[in-house]
Amino acid sequence: MSARPGPAPYLADLTTEEAERAVADSPLVLLPAGALEQHGPGLPLGTDLVRAERVAERVAARLDGRAVIGPSLPVGVSPHHLAFAGTLSLSVDTFRAVVHEYVGGLYRHGWRKVLVITGHGGNNAALTTVAQDLLADRPDLEFAWTPLTALAAEAVAAMDVSEVSGHSGEAETAQMLHLAPDLVRAGRLRPGTTALAGLDRLSRLARRRGHPALQVRYDRLSPDGVLGDPTRATGSDGAAIVTAVVDRITDFAREWLQE
Amino acid sequence: MSARPGPAPYLADLTTEEAERAVADSPLVLLPAGALEQHGPGLPLGTDLVRAERVAERVAARLDGRAVIGPSLPVGVSPHHLAFAGTLSLSVDTFRAVVHEYVGGLYRHGWRKVLVITGHGGNNAALTTVAQDLLADRPDLEFAWTPLTALAAEAVAAMDVSEVSGHSGEAETAQMLHLAPDLVRAGRLRPGTTALAGLDRLSRLARRRGHPALQVRYDRLSPDGVLGDPTRATGSDGAAIVTAVVDRITDFAREWLQE
Amino acid sequence: MSARPGPAPYLADLTTEEAERAVADSPLVLLPAGALEQHGPGLPLGTDLVRAERVAERVAARLDGRAVIGPSLPVGVSPHHLAFAGTLSLSVDTFRAVVHEYVGGLYRHGWRKVLVITGHGGNNAALTTVAQDLLADRPDLEFAWTPLTALAAEAVAAMDVSEVSGHSGEAETAQMLHLAPDLVRAGRLRPGTTALAGLDRLSRLARRRGHPALQVRYDRLSPDGVLGDPTRATGSDGAAIVTAVVDRITDFAREWLQE
Amino acid sequence: MSARPGPAPYLADLTTEEAERAVADSPLVLLPAGALEQHGPGLPLGTDLVRAERVAERVAARLDGRAVIGPSLPVGVSPHHLAFAGTLSLSVDTFRAVVHEYVGGLYRHGWRKVLVITGHGGNNAALTTVAQDLLADRPDLEFAWTPLTALAAEAVAAMDVSEVSGHSGEAETAQMLHLAPDLVRAGRLRPGTTALAGLDRLSRLARRRGHPALQVRYDRLSPDGVLGDPTRATGSDGAAIVTAVVDRITDFAREWLQE
Amino acid sequence: MSARPGPAPYLADLTTEEAERAVADSPLVLLPAGALEQHGPGLPLGTDLVRAERVAERVAARLDGRAVIGPSLPVGVSPHHLAFAGTLSLSVDTFRAVVHEYVGGLYRHGWRKVLVITGHGGNNAALTTVAQDLLADRPDLEFAWTPLTALAAEAVAAMDVSEVSGHSGEAETAQMLHLAPDLVRAGRLRPGTTALAGLDRLSRLARRRGHPALQVRYDRLSPDGVLGDPTRATGSDGAAIVTAVVDRITDFAREWLQE
Amino acid sequence: MSARPGPAPYLADLTTEEAERAVADSPLVLLPAGALEQHGPGLPLGTDLVRAERVAERVAARLDGRAVIGPSLPVGVSPHHLAFAGTLSLSVDTFRAVVHEYVGGLYRHGWRKVLVITGHGGNNAALTTVAQDLLADRPDLEFAWTPLTALAAEAVAAMDVSEVSGHSGEAETAQMLHLAPDLVRAGRLRPGTTALAGLDRLSRLARRRGHPALQVRYDRLSPDGVLGDPTRATGSDGAAIVTAVVDRITDFAREWLQE
Repeated sequence: MSARPGPAPYLADLTTEEAERAVADSPLVLLPAGALEQHGPGLPLGTDLVRAERVAERVAARLDGRAVIGPSLPVGVSPHHLAFAGTLSLSVDTFRAVVHEYVGGLYRHGWRKVLVITGHGGNNAALTTVAQDLLADRPDLEFAWTPLTALAAEAVAAMDVSEVSGHSGEAETAQMLHLAPDLVRAGRLRPGTTALAGLDRLSRLARRRGHPALQVRYDRLSPDGVLGDPTRATGSDGAAIVTAVVDRITDFAREWLQE
Repeated sequence: MSARPGPAPYLADLTTEEAERAVADSPLVLLPAGALEQHGPGLPLGTDLVRAERVAERVAARLDGRAVIGPSLPVGVSPHHLAFAGTLSLSVDTFRAVVHEYVGGLYRHGWRKVLVITGHGGNNAALTTVAQDLLADRPDLEFAWTPLTALAAEAVAAMDVSEVSGHSGEAETAQMLHLAPDLVRAGRLRPGTTALAGLDRLSRLARRRGHPALQVRYDRLSPDGVLGDPTRATGSDGAAIVTAVVDRITDFAREWLQE
Repeated sequence: MSARPGPAPYLADLTTEEAERAVADSPLVLLPAGALEQHGPGLPLGTDLVRAERVAERVAARLDGRAVIGPSLPVGVSPHHLAFAGTLSLSVDTFRAVVHEYVGGLYRHGWRKVLVITGHGGNNAALTTVAQDLLADRPDLEFAWTPLTALAAEAVAAMDVSEVSGHSGEAETAQMLHLAPDLVRAGRLRPGTTALAGLDRLSRLARRRGHPALQVRYDRLSPDGVLGDPTRATGSDGAAIVTAVVDRITDFAREWLQE
Repeated sequence: MSARPGPAPYLADLTTEEAERAVADSPLVLLPAGALEQHGPGLPLGTDLVRAERVAERVAARLDGRAVIGPSLPVGVSPHHLAFAGTLSLSVDTFRAVVHEYVGGLYRHGWRKVLVITGHGGNNAALTTVAQDLLADRPDLEFAWTPLTALAAEAVAAMDVSEVSGHSGEAETAQMLHLAPDLVRAGRLRPGTTALAGLDRLSRLARRRGHPALQVRYDRLSPDGVLGDPTRATGSDGAAIVTAVVDRITDFAREWLQE
Repeated sequence: MSARPGPAPYLADLTTEEAERAVADSPLVLLPAGALEQHGPGLPLGTDLVRAERVAERVAARLDGRAVIGPSLPVGVSPHHLAFAGTLSLSVDTFRAVVHEYVGGLYRHGWRKVLVITGHGGNNAALTTVAQDLLADRPDLEFAWTPLTALAAEAVAAMDVSEVSGHSGEAETAQMLHLAPDLVRAGRLRPGTTALAGLDRLSRLARRRGHPALQVRYDRLSPDGVLGDPTRATGSDGAAIVTAVVDRITDFAREWLQE
Repeated sequence: MSARPGPAPYLADLTTEEAERAVADSPLVLLPAGALEQHGPGLPLGTDLVRAERVAERVAARLDGRAVIGPSLPVGVSPHHLAFAGTLSLSVDTFRAVVHEYVGGLYRHGWRKVLVITGHGGNNAALTTVAQDLLADRPDLEFAWTPLTALAAEAVAAMDVSEVSGHSGEAETAQMLHLAPDLVRAGRLRPGTTALAGLDRLSRLARRRGHPALQVRYDRLSPDGVLGDPTRATGSDGAAIVTAVVDRITDFAREWLQE
C-alpha cells in the first residue's frame, strides 16, 4: 500500500467521488490475494501477494481503465506451512468471511464483476466455496478467481523443471526474479526436494496426480520448505510465465466485460 | 441405511464391541458423500450418494476387511442446482462442520486414516478446506478425499461424449445404469446442453478449461439441468468407469495402508 | 440409502420432475433421524436410524402418497455415549444447523409440513429448539417432531420391563427383532443395569422421574451401555410397539393433512 | 437485583473473599432463569423470573447455607410470544451461550454442582442441550435444571383447572398471587382460552399430549395470550404449588449434596 | 428483580398491554448493564449492576414517564478480574449478542431509542461495537450507551483521590455508600494500590493516559483488586457523584427526547 | 505491499530464516490497521492505512531493529461511512477474527509483544475487545493498540481547527500532505461541516464530549463526509502531528521493550 506508480488503479488511491465514477467506468474489480508464508531461504514471506499485485496491475493496465484493484488479502490459508517461522494463516472461516465482506461491500456500491487473483494455491478451495455461497446469495453477481502459475503450463514446461517442483521452486522463483528481483536473496537459493525418491511414502502418495487428494505438511515434504530447484530459475523464465498469465487473465476479462 | 448385503462393512451395522475391534483391524474409514440435487429427468435426486456408497462398498470389499464404511453425507453443497425442485443443499459452513465432527469422532476412537468418497463434485472444495483445517488441528490424522468420475478419464474418453458433457450426462448416467438400473428412468432420458454453441456467453466462459474459475447456476447452463446426452450411455460404459474408479481408489488405499 | 423396496417414497429416489409434483401431492415430508451410538453388545450402532426409517416407511405407506421421506440424519446428538467405541455425535449446534438447512430447502421448494421422526431421544431437545427458532423465522411453516418408543407406552408396559429399562433394553431390542432381525446379535444379548440398586447415588438421582433433570454418561449407568434386559425382548413385542407407534403418527399426520 | 432481604444468599451480594469461601461451603449454585414475555392482561412480563428467584431463595434458605444463588437469566427463549408487546427473546444460540459462560465461570472457581431453576418452560429444551454439551465438555461437572409448576402436579390437579390451561392460567397466576401479589393486576385478570373447542384444528393438534410435538404461536392459541382461567386462582393455591415445588427441589438438592 | 418500589418503571413489571402503551408514551428504554466481578474486600461482586440500576431508576424518575427500564445485563465483560473468586465474565461475542437481541426485540415492538447505562467500564468497547453494527443494520434506531463515574469528573476531582485510583477505589466506594450502604462491608475496606510506585513496569505503562492502550490483569495491578483507597470514601461524596451522573444523563435524554 | 525502501522492516519482506531471527532480535511486532472508506473529495479511500503504515515505518526505524512490521489490515470497521461510494467495511466479528488470527500466528512463532497502529478510529473499540479476549486467552502475551491523531493533541490544538473538526478535516489532511502529498487532490479540498450550527439536533448530541456516547452516520453529519476545513491544512502542520505521534509511540515502545 506504499507509493505506487501512477497508472495502477488501486481503489485505495481513489477518492469517494472517483470511486463513484469507477463503478460505471471500471465494472471489474480485481482483488489480489496472497499469503504470508515461508518461501524457502531465498524468497520473502510475502512472495504470493507481490506476484498477485504485480499481475493485477498489469492486467488492469491492459484493460484500459475497465478494471480497478480492490483491497488485498495479505494473509491467506496456509496451515501447511505453519511449522516455518513467520508463516501466518487465516482460518478457512475467517478467510471466507473477509472475501465475503469485501465482495458484499463492492456489491453494495454497484459492482457486479469481481475477480480474485490469488498468488497462493492454498486459497483456491476457500475461494471456490465463496463462489458457491454467492451463487445462492447474490445471483446477479459474477464472481471468479484465478491462480497464477497454473495458467502458464506451457511456459513452465519449457523450463524443464525437476521431477518434484512447486512451492518456491523453479517457476515461482522465476516470477519473483522478474517481478521483484530486489526481494530475492539470490545467494541463498538452493535446491529443495527435487525427486520423488526424496519423499517418504505418505508424501509420495500425496504428490501423485489424479488420485485421491491427500495433503501433508510442507515440513514433511522438504526440510527447507522448497519443492524443486530455484537456482535454475531465471528472470527471463519469469517474464515468460508472467506474460502468459497476464495474457490469459486479460483475455478472459475482455470477453467477460463484453458480456 | 436399509438392509444391506452381508459383506458391506458399514460401521452403522457393527456393535460397539465390533467397532472396538475395527479400530485395530480396519484402520481406514470410508465416508460416502453425496448430494440431494436434480439430475435431470432421468436420474434420481440421490444419484451421487448411490454412486458413492456403491463404490465405497466395492473398495471395501477389495480391501479384505481393512476398511469400514462410516456414516454417509446424504446432502452436499449444491447451491448451483437450487432452482430445480427437490434439490437440498447444506451451506459450506454446515457441510464442513459435519465432516469435521464425523472425523473428530472417528479420531477419538483411534482411527487415523479417513477417506471421503464423494459422488458430488460440489463437495470437493469444502472437503479440501476440511483437509487444510486438519493439517493444523490434528497433525497425526491422515485425511483424504476423492471424486469418482474424474478418476476414470480414459474410460470416459472412450465413450466419445458430447462437446459439453458433465452433470447427469453420458458418464454419470452410465454409472447409474450399471450400479442402480432400477433407479434410472430410461424412457425419460433426453439430451441436455451438448454443445458450447448452446450456451450464452457467460456460461461459455464458465466452461473454459484452464482459465479463471467462474461458476454459473445450472438453470442457466441447461433448462433440464443436464450437460451432455445421457441417451448415449450404456451399462457397460458404466461398468468400465466404475471399475477404473474402484481400481484407482483401491490401489491408493493399499499403498496408504502399508504405510 | 441402499436399494429399497419400490413403494417407499424416498425423495432421494425421485427425479426433480417427480419432486416438483410431490410438493403438491405429498405435502408432508418425513425426516428420519437416528444416531450412530453404542447399543450394547447385541444391537448395531445404527439402531436408531434403522427404526426411524422403517417407521417412516410404514407411516408413508399408510398415508397413500400424501407423504415423502426426505434425507436422513444418520448421526445425532450422543455425547452421553462417547465413551463407547464407534459412537459418533454431532454437536448440538451442527445438528441444529443440518435440520434447519434441510427444512429451509424443503420450504424453498414449497413444502410447509415437516415431521422429524427420531429414533434417538438425545435429539429431542435439539429438535424442540429448532421448532422454537422456526416459530419466529418461518411462521407459515408447520414443523413437528416425534419420538418412537414414547408413543407406545401401553405396549411397553405390557412387556413388564425391568425396574431400570431404556436404552438398548427390552423395548428397543424388541423393535429391532421385529424390524431388522438380521442386525440383532441374539447370542450376545445380555442384561445390563436392571435395578436402581445397581446404580450409584448420582445415577439414581438422574433416573428419578418428575424431578430436576440431571444427565449422567452411559458408561456410569451401565458398563455395557444397556439399561434393562434385552434377552426378554421378542419380535412380537416389537411388532406391538411398532404398530402402536405407526398408528399414532399416522393418526396425527392424517389430522394434520386435513388442515 | 434490588435490595434483598438479608438471608437470600445471592452471589452478587458477596465480596470476592466471601465467594472464595462459598466455593467450599456452598457447593451448589442455583441459577434462576426467567423470560420477559407476555403473561396476559393481569401478570407482568417478568413473571417467570420473579417465580424462579423466589423459589431459588426459598430452596437456598432450606439448604442451610449449602447453596448460593448465581446471576439470573432475565430473558429466555420466547419466540412463541413475540407477537405480544414487550416480549423479548434470546435466540437459542445466545441463551445457550449465556448459560455455558455462567457455568464455565463457576466451574473455573471450583463449583461442580449447578442447578438452573427456570420459571419459563420455553427454556427447557435449550437447557437440556446445554446439559448434553457439558456431558462431553466438562465430565466432572454436575449440571441439572428444573421447571417449577411441573413439579407440583398434585397441587395443580387439586385446583381443578380448565380443560385448556397453562401459560398465565390458574396455576401460574396462583403462584404470583402467593409470591408477588403486588405485581398482579387482579382487576384485569380474565379467562383466556379454556376449552379445546376454542382452538383451531392445528392448535388442537399442538395441545394433544403424547403425540408428535408441534408448536404454535401463542397469538394463535389465545388472543389474550392466556391459557386457562386466571380468575379462579387464589393465593392459597399458589402457596400449595410453591410449597410442593420448593419441597421437591430441596429434597433433590439434599440428596445431591450428600453425594 | 426483587420487589421494587412502585415508581421505578421496569418493563419486567408491566403487563403486555401496559408495554404496548409504553412504546408510545415511554419512547426511551434504559438498559442497565453491570458485571459480576471482584470489587475488593469491601464491595459486593454485583456492585456495577447495583449502581447502574439505581442510576437508571433515578434518571427514569426524572423523565416523567418518558423512559422505561428494560432487562438488565447482570454479567459483563470482565476477563481482567477472572483471577478473583466469584468473578464471572461473558465473552465479548456473547455480551454483544445479548445486547443485540435485547435491542432487536425492543425495536420489533416499536422502540427507537435505547440507552445502555453501564456500571462497568469493561463493557464500554463491546457496547461501542454494538453501536457500530446497528448503524448499518438498523439505520432508524438510535442507540447510545453511557458509563457512570466518567460523567462526574468534577465531583471525583473534588474527592482528592489517590495517585492511582479507579476500580473499587474512592469514587466507586462512595457511590455504593450512598446507593446501597447495606451492601458495603465498611469494616473490611482497606487501601489497594494507591501509587504508581506500587506498580511494576508493565502495569505503570498500562496506567499512562494518552498513550497506546495496554491492558493488564487486575491481579497484577493489585493483590486485593483495588485501585485507590476506599476508606476515604464517604456517602456524601457518593451523593455528589451520583447527582452529577444522573443530571448528565437526564439532560442528555431530555434533549434526545425532544428530537 | 509494493516495492518499499530498504530499511522498512516488513515481515512480508523477510525470508523464513530471517523471520526466525527476528523473533529474538525484534520482539515487538507492529500491525498497521487502516480503513477503506470515504475521506471526502480530496483524500483517497486508503488514507488511514497510508498514515498507519508510514507511522509504523518511522517508529520501527527509531527502534533500531527491535521491531518488525507485520501484515496490514487494509479494511477496517467503517459502517458509518457506507453511504459513500467505495467504502468497504469488515463486520466487527470478522475484524476481530483477523486480528486474533494475526496475533495467534505471531504468538505461535514466539512473539509476545504486539502493537496495532490504527489510522482509523472506528477500529478502536474492536481492538479493545481483542485486548480483553487476550487477557484471558493468552496471559503471557502483551497486546497494545494505539490511535494516531489522538496522541498529538497539542500539535492539533496549535492548528486552531474548526469548531467541528475530525474525519478528513484539518489534522488528517495535514498528515496526508506531509506523508503522501501525491495522494492528496489539493484542488478538490473544500470545507465540510465546520460548526455545530450546521448539524441537526441528533448530530449535535452525538458530537458532545463527556456525554453518553451516540453515533450517527457520516452522511448525516456532512454531505461531503468531511468534518472541519481541510483547506486550512499544511504539510508542516502534518509534520508536527506525525512527529508528535511517532515520538509518543516510540517512547512507549522503548519503555515496553526494556521490560
